[in-house]
Amino acid sequence: MTSATQTGAERSRQGRLYLVPAPLDFGCDTQVPLADVMPQGTLETTARLTHWICESAKSARAYLKRVGALAPLALPLQTQQITELPHQIHKKGDHAGALGSGFDVRPLLGAALNGHDIGLLSEAGMPAVADPGSSVVRAAHDLGLEVVALTGPVSLLLALATSGLNGQNFAFVGYLPQDPAERGRRIRELETMALKTGQTQLFIETPYRNAALLQALLQNLQHNTRLSVSSGLTLPRAQTRSELVKAWRLQPVGPDNSTPAVFAIGR
Amino acid sequence: MTSATQTGAERSRQGRLYLVPAPLDFGCDTQVPLADVMPQGTLETTARLTHWICESAKSARAYLKRVGALAPLALPLQTQQITELPHQIHKKGDHAGALGSGFDVRPLLGAALNGHDIGLLSEAGMPAVADPGSSVVRAAHDLGLEVVALTGPVSLLLALATSGLNGQNFAFVGYLPQDPAERGRRIRELETMALKTGQTQLFIETPYRNAALLQALLQNLQHNTRLSVSSGLTLPRAQTRSELVKAWRLQPVGPDNSTPAVFAIGR
Repeated sequence: MTSATQTGAERSRQGRLYLVPAPLDFGCDTQVPLADVMPQGTLETTARLTHWICESAKSARAYLKRVGALAPLALPLQTQQITELPHQIHKKGDHAGALGSGFDVRPLLGAALNGHDIGLLSEAGMPAVADPGSSVVRAAHDLGLEVVALTGPVSLLLALATSGLNGQNFAFVGYLPQDPAERGRRIRELETMALKTGQTQLFIETPYRNAALLQALLQNLQHNTRLSVSSGLTLPRAQTRSELVKAWRLQPVGPDNSTPAVFAIGR
Repeated sequence: MTSATQTGAERSRQGRLYLVPAPLDFGCDTQVPLADVMPQGTLETTARLTHWICESAKSARAYLKRVGALAPLALPLQTQQITELPHQIHKKGDHAGALGSGFDVRPLLGAALNGHDIGLLSEAGMPAVADPGSSVVRAAHDLGLEVVALTGPVSLLLALATSGLNGQNFAFVGYLPQDPAERGRRIRELETMALKTGQTQLFIETPYRNAALLQALLQNLQHNTRLSVSSGLTLPRAQTRSELVKAWRLQPVGPDNSTPAVFAIGR
């Protein structure tokens, strides 16, 4: 049954899939006041949902508890239905299925076919953006469910906006390779693309490798390429440093190895 | 004077540049309740600012009036200092200056050097993302000002999340060419990239050309490419249709020509 062949009545008996943003303070030593980063409408919809698909049930419960302090939860936490994304998605990426080696995530959406709204929740930021979950969204479309994204903080876009780099043409390419030689090659490849086409290139790293990535960038980038590093976005210690590589080289100080960061290069 | 050579005391005497999000209902027939899309913290910071750089002074005043109904403005609207972005930026893009043919936007930031916080505001969504303003952000960094982006709705990211397409590797490429032959070529070029690398390709169109763009996409894309179209995001009539091109061809119905839409293709 797809949206193309469904009647309005069929659709109205089904639940929706909500993409529920989480704050960007996961794993950080300070918590952001939720009212600083979540619209009241997002908090109220989050509080109303009772069926969840998430990265980690433990983090989901911790976040819903924070929401409950601002908007009463529809059901006590222990009676909510919380399902974790299968490990295969974390390991193989969301779309292994499309390439023939995957598995079927549609059963996760059974509650929606029975009329319950379902929330998809990441540990930080917007699910399915720089995070797993897009295969669940795709399955929802294939089942003819409505999919609705709620407004909340998205680190990539906050980083792009504060970078001063081209925001009318940009790409996010995920993580760079860990092998130093491969990483160097990839950095130079991304720089060539950024300088040639003007397309800003964004990427991330797990925080404990921030310093290593910054060092690799300063080793491989050209003097006049602009490098922007945003860290701790939405936290009180949020910071964006955007300068030419030659200025970074004079003072090669980036985010510490415990603060989430987004890196961007461009001309 | 750059951030690298400034002392803490110098920085603390300067104002900051805030990137202030606007709702996505600009030019639409319905208005979104601000509490649905703006965190209270964003509204309070917006209300506190009295110096603005914006796309259009008229739209900026209209939006600040809406904010004032939820959070008291620090100064009456008619006494706020509201400056429009120069026409050259709209015409030539933000970074003509870097290529030697531009002009200096630093004078726009004079108030910040005198200790006033300044807000940069678009007509819809996040300034400097799929919208002008990045040259102002860049100038702020060059002057050693702190730049802070406030959380709010960003149509590109809401569209990407709801598409079910790869959100761990994606690009936004702005507008496609208007000439039909060139547009067809560009569509096939973007599709090749999306299918080869798995990088989702996002683009936009002015609403009155939505139907023409959809038609061009269905003429040029391959049968098994996935096409997602999100329209009216955050509005009551928000909708995302994400299906294979062959399903779109059976029912080629997209957004009307008055609703802002974001298009995405991928495998």
